This record gives sequence, structure tokens and C-alpha cells, in this order.
Amino acid sequence: MRIVDIRESTVPLASGMRNAKIDFRAMTASAVVIVSDLRRDGRNLVGLAFDSIGRYGHGGLLRERFIPRLLAAAPDDYADRFGTNIDPFKVWDIVMRGEKPGGHGERSGAVGLIDAAIWDLVAKIEEKPLWRVLADRFRGGSVETRVPAYASGGHYRPDGDLAALADEIRRSRELGYRRVKIKIGGAPLSEDLRRIETVLDAVGSGDDLAVDCNGTFSREQAIRYVTALEPYKLAWIEEPVEPLDYELHRELRAMMATPLATGENIFSAPDLRNLLRHAGLHREHDLLQMDVSLSYGIVEYLAMLALVEEHGWSRRRCLPHAGHLLSFHVVAGLGLGGHESAPDANSIFGGYPEGMSVADGFVSLPDAVGVGIERKSNLYAVFRDLVAT
Amino acid sequence: MRIVDIRESTVPLASGMRNAKIDFRAMTASAVVIVSDLRRDGRNLVGLAFDSIGRYGHGGLLRERFIPRLLAAAPDDYADRFGTNIDPFKVWDIVMRGEKPGGHGERSGAVGLIDAAIWDLVAKIEEKPLWRVLADRFRGGSVETRVPAYASGGHYRPDGDLAALADEIRRSRELGYRRVKIKIGGAPLSEDLRRIETVLDAVGSGDDLAVDCNGTFSREQAIRYVTALEPYKLAWIEEPVEPLDYELHRELRAMMATPLATGENIFSAPDLRNLLRHAGLHREHDLLQMDVSLSYGIVEYLAMLALVEEHGWSRRRCLPHAGHLLSFHVVAGLGLGGHESAPDANSIFGGYPEGMSVADGFVSLPDAVGVGIERKSNLYAVFRDLVAT
Repeated sequence: MRIVDIRESTVPLASGMRNAKIDFRAMTASAVVIVSDLRRDGRNLVGLAFDSIGRYGHGGLLRERFIPRLLAAAPDDYADRFGTNIDPFKVWDIVMRGEKPGGHGERSGAVGLIDAAIWDLVAKIEEKPLWRVLADRFRGGSVETRVPAYASGGHYRPDGDLAALADEIRRSRELGYRRVKIKIGGAPLSEDLRRIETVLDAVGSGDDLAVDCNGTFSREQAIRYVTALEPYKLAWIEEPVEPLDYELHRELRAMMATPLATGENIFSAPDLRNLLRHAGLHREHDLLQMDVSLSYGIVEYLAMLALVEEHGWSRRRCLPHAGHLLSFHVVAGLGLGGHESAPDANSIFGGYPEGMSVADGFVSLPDAVGVGIERKSNLYAVFRDLVAT
Repeated sequence: MRIVDIRESTVPLASGMRNAKIDFRAMTASAVVIVSDLRRDGRNLVGLAFDSIGRYGHGGLLRERFIPRLLAAAPDDYADRFGTNIDPFKVWDIVMRGEKPGGHGERSGAVGLIDAAIWDLVAKIEEKPLWRVLADRFRGGSVETRVPAYASGGHYRPDGDLAALADEIRRSRELGYRRVKIKIGGAPLSEDLRRIETVLDAVGSGDDLAVDCNGTFSREQAIRYVTALEPYKLAWIEEPVEPLDYELHRELRAMMATPLATGENIFSAPDLRNLLRHAGLHREHDLLQMDVSLSYGIVEYLAMLALVEEHGWSRRRCLPHAGHLLSFHVVAGLGLGGHESAPDANSIFGGYPEGMSVADGFVSLPDAVGVGIERKSNLYAVFRDLVAT
């Protein structure tokens, strides 16, 4: 079996959303298609991947380094030991050849896209959903039938009124979610407290509300916010400060009862090891949110999970960032703590493919082979031209 | 004054060099030209930047994000307070708009190129060498007339014999260098010891030889190497292990008398802060080698120097990685400890522009305005088409 082509395109994700740190008007993402020479139903079997969000598309790096390396490899170099499928670990080594250690950003997202498309292809060749492939290979087949998921939203919007926020939360609850997450830190504390109280009115309990600060606060602001939020007994406070300031995390951790969540801006196992060693996080209390796609993909995420468990944490403390479909399969197949969902199915990075449903805060497992991008029509639309050739 | 165009091209750096971690056959680098609307001698005044080495060109990221942001900015947004020059700090904020925290790699090199070209332009507008601009702005004009420099080389070559290594070192000494650095860790310890002894025969003293392991060793290998190297009393041992494993650095530091050098794979102030806090490095003994160009440029490097001094280190402990011309100006203008030189002037990233000379381990200060790329003919050749249009 041979990889005959790799195609990519950059997709604008223009949106009026804003969090405390950036707005999304110029945001882009990459779509990647890996074409194999295997024929199914009169077409070449393909692996698809769609980017995570927040770090822009990865087209330049894919074209400059990672696609050429994989296309230049001999099929024997990436064949699995039976010669009937592709070995994602071998692919990973091929694309990372000639890369220096350290500097884990950008390329980690480009490699993550290739890794994701390879896993989609691997699962299609096995004729299984990806969650099943992962559970079979790495969990002895064990899997739960429902995946915990929360609705991520509550961005600052240009209109920005509290009634619109309450409406959004109500819609999420009607869609079947229980727990929601909203953005804070992009407005004065008093306004953020009104946003929090508005949402609490809708969800009923602090345990069903998490808040995301997008790493925006100084030490003083963080202490002020964290202290002010304690009485609400929220599910967690996410990224209150600069994500690489481990010592400040340690200080905040010591003054908080609310769980602390971080990791979405940590893109490699060596960086995660430093977070686990130096940030003072509590393994029975805090949450790790590394993004599978932005962190070199599933191959590196498996190394991250090994580190997590080496440090005495349960993988249930892992809630990957960004709520893309790849992430859903990883959460389901590897038994993680839960999935972040963007509930708006009209957005290409929100909702679920047909055949999946949300109820009581859990998402059902899909039976489509691979990741299932083909079953979400507005997302698959961005692949149609790439696949057609 | 207005930036009217930004051009870039990717330059292959094909070379037979190899260190312990990667070979350089597919290595590339970016050349960047920022064109202003100021006229000098019948042409538009331009700022030039040439990449550092080891992390590939940055063309994709430049075209996707950083060049468009700067070209879209209004001249008032980047004018200095007198309106007669460009403010590099404002440019930095413009190009980093919409970028999330963390993930400091790749984009740090793309932004570093824009920052470098801007500083070249700023110095040309002031009609000064860049070292003079930096000394005037950040050191009250104080500057030493000679810059300590060492000759970096001793790569593994396909032919690889010791006589060739000894020849290379002799050539470096004849060129006026005293201290040299060679690669180790890409061969068995016994062979590396023969390489070291061959070089010691040529340079006479351990203090004139540093060794670079390119982050290749496991803990056990590192302990073996570090122990075996102690009797040679070398100038420093560079990157013995994975550059982000701060705890392992702390362990090695405690068992070494030889100075430990690291930092070339640390690309931001937040990452440097973690290195300074967690790696157990000794501020009167060890060396910091962050690469100016790969670390978001001079604007971020100034923030790094502030951190270095905040942690009680002298900036003399800083020896920036890679030996590019930008780095020379930073070392000279900001009073750092020394400059890494690639001695081979036939290489586009080696040697110095005309008018600069090496003697007794020191390099003279150039008087050409800006960085002086125009005065190194084989390097300027890669810019000719970019500048011509």
C-alpha cells in the first residue's frame, strides 16, 4: 500500500467571537487529505484531517517540510508489520526526521494534521471507527458507551448582552449538554461576575459551569479573580495566567479550592513533563487540556498520557482542548475524562456528524468508520474539492 | 515613512555537515527584505535579514501571517515618537496581534526575521551600524572596541577523519580565532575522545575547546560523557541532553565542574524564565545561548536579557547561538559575553563582511551602516533579486 498524494487547503474561519486574548476574525484552519492507492467503491481510500482552532492553518509548514518528507518515503518505511496497513508511529518518525528538539509550536500542529489523517486512513482500512481502533490497540478493547462532554462557548460577542449569553446557554442545555464553559477575563471583574451569575441562573449549579480566562491575567488580577470566584464552587478555572509560568500556577494552586485547568498551550511531551513537575498541580483535583491535533497528534498524545500516568495522575483528569472530532475519538477510545464540544452544528467546527447524539451531558459513540468527517456535511464540504481530483 | 513592500525567499543551505541530531542536506533559510518609501541614492531604502540555521526557512509563516499583518498596518502605527524612524517594538506588537501565548517555535523565527530586517532599516535610517544603535539606545553608548568570538565547527563529515578535523581547527586558528567548538555525541565515546584529543593537540588548552552534544544523550549517556570529559577542563559542554528537561540539567549540573551551556532551543522569554528557575544552572559558571533571530528577534531578546539580570546573572554569560551577523551586532551593542562564528567565509552563513577582521580571538567592529549584509558578497547575492524589483 502506498500514499500517492497529500493535499491541503487553508480554510477561513471568520467569526465574530472574541475571548480575553484574541479575536477570531482572521482565524484560519487547514484541511488535509492523504490519498492511498487502495481502492474502495471505485475510489482511492483517503484519510482526512481538519485542524484545531486558535493557532491558524498550517499550510506553509505542511508544504515546506512535512508533506514532501512523507511523499518521499518508500511504502516499506511506513507499512505496519503485516504490510496491510500504515503504521502511524513510523509515519511520525518520517515526518519528524531532521527536526531539532525544543521549539514545540506550529510544526506540532502541522505534524498533528498528518498524524490525524493517517489515523483516519488506518481506521478506514480496518473498517472501524477510530475510537474502536484506539481502544483495541491501547485499552484492550475496553470502552464506555457514552462519552462525557461539555458545551464550550460564552465568548464575548460584539453585541455582548447578558440575555444573548443566557439564550446561548439555554440552547446548549436543550441540545443535551449539562456542563457549560464560558469566557471570562475580557471584561472588568464586575461584568464577568454578572456573566457568571447569569449562566448559573440557567444551569443551577457551580459544578455545571467552568470559566476560561485564556491566560490573560497578571498575578495580581489572577489572585483577585480566583478569590472572587471561590464562592461559586465552579467546575474549574481555566488558564488564569501565562500558560508557561509554572511557578505562578503553583502559587495560585495553593490559594484555590476550585480546580485549575491548563495545558492547551503545551504542545509536546517534554513541555507537559515540565508542567507536571513544576506547576504544583494537584493530580486528584486539577485538569490537563492538551490539544491532540496541535500537539503532534495521537502518537505524541500517547506519550503524554504515559507521562501523565507516570506522575500518578489518572487519564480521567485529561480533557483535550478544542472539541474537534479527532479529539472525540481520542477521549472515547483512550478513556479520558471528557470531551469539549462546540455546540453550534452550523459552524464547521461545532456539533457532531449524523448518527451521533447528545443527552444528559453524554455523547453517543458513532459507528461510521474512521473519524467520520464525511458524515458532517458542512465540514465535509471544505474537503470536497481536495478529495475530488 | 511607510513600509511599501516585504519580500522573502527560501534559500537552500545544502551542506554535508552533520551533528549528533540532524544532517543539513535538506536545510533551508529565509532571506527577507523590507522596502521603505525613503529614497537614498536613487533607491528605496531597505532592511535586510537572513535566517539563523537549523530550523529551516520561515517563508510559509511569513506569507500566511506576519508579512500581511505588517503590510496592513498604518504608518502611524509603527512610526517612532518623532515620526522619523520605525519603532521596532510597535512593529513587534503589530505582527504578534492575534497570536496566542505558548507554543514558542517556528513563528518565533518568522517574527525574528521581520524584527531583524526592521532593525537593519532603523540603523540605516540613523546612518549607524546596528551595534551603535543598540549601544546608544540600551547601554548609554558604552561599547568595547573588540568582540570576543569563537570558531564553531568540527561537524561530523561524510569523510570524517581526524586529520581533516585537525586541519579545520588549524585553519580557524590561522584566521585569528583562539577558542573553537566541535560537535560530539554523533559517534561512540572513544571516537569522540579521540576527536577531542586531536583538537586539544592543536589548541593547546581545554579552555580553548568547547564541545556541543546537540541535546542527544539519555541521562545515562550524559553522565558517562560528562564524567569522561571532566579531566580535559573544557571551556563548556553544550546541550548534553534534551533541552527542555530542566530537572535532568539540575542533576548534571550538580555532578559537573565543567561549565554547562544551553538555551539555543529556548525561543521566548517565558521559556527562558523556566530554564533559569528550574534547571539549576549556575549564574557565575554556566552559559546561555538563546538565538536572537529564532527567538522573535531583538525585541524579545531584550526581554530575555532583563530576565537574565533579574535572576542575578551577568549578560556576559550570554553567548547567542548560530553566529549570524545580527547576533554579532547584538553581542557588540548589548555587551554580551561573546559571539559564535562559523569561520568559513565561503559559506553564506560564515565569515564576516569586508572591513571586519579577527585577531587573537576578537572581532573588530564594522563601520558600515545597518547589519552589513551588503558587504558580504556571497550572502548579499541571495538578496539581489529580492532587492532589485
